[in-house]
Amino acid sequence: MIFFKQQLLHFTKKIFMHCGMNESDAELSSAVLITADLRGIDSHGVARLSGYIRLHEAGRANMRPQWKIIHETPSTATVDADSGFGLTVAPKAMDIAIEKAKQVGTGWVAIQNSNHFGIAAFHAMKALPHDMIGIAMTNASPLVAPTLSKERMLGTNPICYAFPAGKYAPIVIDLATSTAANGKLEIAQRAQKKIPKGWIIDKNGNDTEDPNALKDGGILLPLGSGTTNAGHKGFALSAMVDLLCGVLSGANYGPWVPPFVNFLGPLNEMPGKGIGHFIGAMRIDAFRPANDFKLHIDNWIERFKIATPIDKYNPVVIPGEPEFAMEKERLTNGIPLNKLVVKDLLVLGKKFEIQL
Amino acid sequence: MIFFKQQLLHFTKKIFMHCGMNESDAELSSAVLITADLRGIDSHGVARLSGYIRLHEAGRANMRPQWKIIHETPSTATVDADSGFGLTVAPKAMDIAIEKAKQVGTGWVAIQNSNHFGIAAFHAMKALPHDMIGIAMTNASPLVAPTLSKERMLGTNPICYAFPAGKYAPIVIDLATSTAANGKLEIAQRAQKKIPKGWIIDKNGNDTEDPNALKDGGILLPLGSGTTNAGHKGFALSAMVDLLCGVLSGANYGPWVPPFVNFLGPLNEMPGKGIGHFIGAMRIDAFRPANDFKLHIDNWIERFKIATPIDKYNPVVIPGEPEFAMEKERLTNGIPLNKLVVKDLLVLGKKFEIQL
Repeated sequence: MIFFKQQLLHFTKKIFMHCGMNESDAELSSAVLITADLRGIDSHGVARLSGYIRLHEAGRANMRPQWKIIHETPSTATVDADSGFGLTVAPKAMDIAIEKAKQVGTGWVAIQNSNHFGIAAFHAMKALPHDMIGIAMTNASPLVAPTLSKERMLGTNPICYAFPAGKYAPIVIDLATSTAANGKLEIAQRAQKKIPKGWIIDKNGNDTEDPNALKDGGILLPLGSGTTNAGHKGFALSAMVDLLCGVLSGANYGPWVPPFVNFLGPLNEMPGKGIGHFIGAMRIDAFRPANDFKLHIDNWIERFKIATPIDKYNPVVIPGEPEFAMEKERLTNGIPLNKLVVKDLLVLGKKFEIQL
Repeated sequence: MIFFKQQLLHFTKKIFMHCGMNESDAELSSAVLITADLRGIDSHGVARLSGYIRLHEAGRANMRPQWKIIHETPSTATVDADSGFGLTVAPKAMDIAIEKAKQVGTGWVAIQNSNHFGIAAFHAMKALPHDMIGIAMTNASPLVAPTLSKERMLGTNPICYAFPAGKYAPIVIDLATSTAANGKLEIAQRAQKKIPKGWIIDKNGNDTEDPNALKDGGILLPLGSGTTNAGHKGFALSAMVDLLCGVLSGANYGPWVPPFVNFLGPLNEMPGKGIGHFIGAMRIDAFRPANDFKLHIDNWIERFKIATPIDKYNPVVIPGEPEFAMEKERLTNGIPLNKLVVKDLLVLGKKFEIQL
């Protein structure tokens, strides 16, 4: 079933407002979710709307957060998100980072006491129109095993860097530090298909090709998978995100990061507050003239596009390129939603008497 | 053959001074190399000394660089390394970053016109005694294929983050963004052993288990290896390092990064100057009190150490832990050097009349 951007934005905004969010925050949250759908990151779009609402209904998210800067220097700030959604607090943290970058070259904001922030790229890309490099990371509830362990200790902890280009689309690197994301496993589960070795281990720590093993206590593997192909590097990258987002901000970290799903409550005796994000903006002309940089980014893109392909019909893909192509396509032809997602939205709409 | 730290430091320093370096730069360069040997990163220690000297003899490295800051803001600087070794310029760039972090919370330095900087961890760890997080990256000459390509387009482009701890050793994340490093392939070549699939592809872009395929036009794969296990993420991380180190600084990038080995000259018509690094320092108390942070880092380490192991005799390894253990061991018992490395050093010593 096909939906258009404005329709989903309007519906999502009304739902958030019905649950107590003010209009501008509801608009911002909706924009983050629908941007995910437009870019083809279907797992992080309106498919999650009912999850956010359940988090609110479970009393774990604050729809009217009095977020505030609790500490700052000319190039840094720490923000307490007051249990609001990362969907609204992360873009505002990026505004702070951008202001600081205007003043002193770069700006860096660590956020504690937050909830899920949607797609990292939304926040990082806010820096682009200012001729800045945007950075966004978040920790997340534990699903990934450190190398040598069979315990869920880390989230899929994404890293996002957005670089402005000249005549081409920006280079947007946005990746979970696990080998596979949950969404890919769900696709395999629905299709009853085997998954490649290296995506997950079962509850006993053995390699498995069964996508259902995750539900049965299995664990995602970090980028690089097992020890043979350097999974310890993916573990280290995921740890880096956890330390910047969790430990540096004063949020929770490792196995204490509260889960997104409402039926799993947070643990007792947590070491920090909520989940954590880390946001950065670097002004290009704090290093070199922005136009020079963008010319060289264009040159980088052109050179990598013609790198000798293994299969001449499959050239190298620049990070972010498929998402920009998808956005263009879906702005014109609409966003196809899975029927389970549509059903979920219709249930929400009926409950709150809001028309999809 | 076993050598002790002071012996190698002294020898290396004399060699560098003989080639025209001033005493303090020679001491610094030697410290970077011997730190690699102490930490067990044998590929980046004195084994490379003759390579650096050949680079100098080929006229490609400046032993008396007049490096300078060519652009700056309160939190950033761009440095022209004047064709010096990254070995000396990168630690000085970190000093600049630390000074800026003292003033405005964080400091970031992009370096152009440089040469190989040794181990990233040396530079990043300089931030630790100041209660700062240290960051160091470099691009390097092309050996790694972007996903879908069989062309050498990227270096092994390392990412290093060093986080200060309280009662434990710091967490030091230092990883090449390729699945395997050259050193691991050389070990397999010497032992005439197969390598795991996913480390390299041959010149035609096919998977191979033959370590010699690299010499025959083969290519290293990015972290994650092929498309099945998300090698595109390793490609994107390597690209991120290249864009920060190469494009942002005004250095070369991608396939234009000049090779470390002297028998391969730089390409004609390069888009930038030399190779590039990116260095950062973030003051912990620009975000939260340093002691709170370090207590939580200790807690993070303790919790990860007891994460349920797959094999109860092999607990989780904290990033940096093996290197600190190795350093302790080698400070006491000495540094074992490969006989080919010793031979290489003896040849150098004889040439310059310096006793090993």
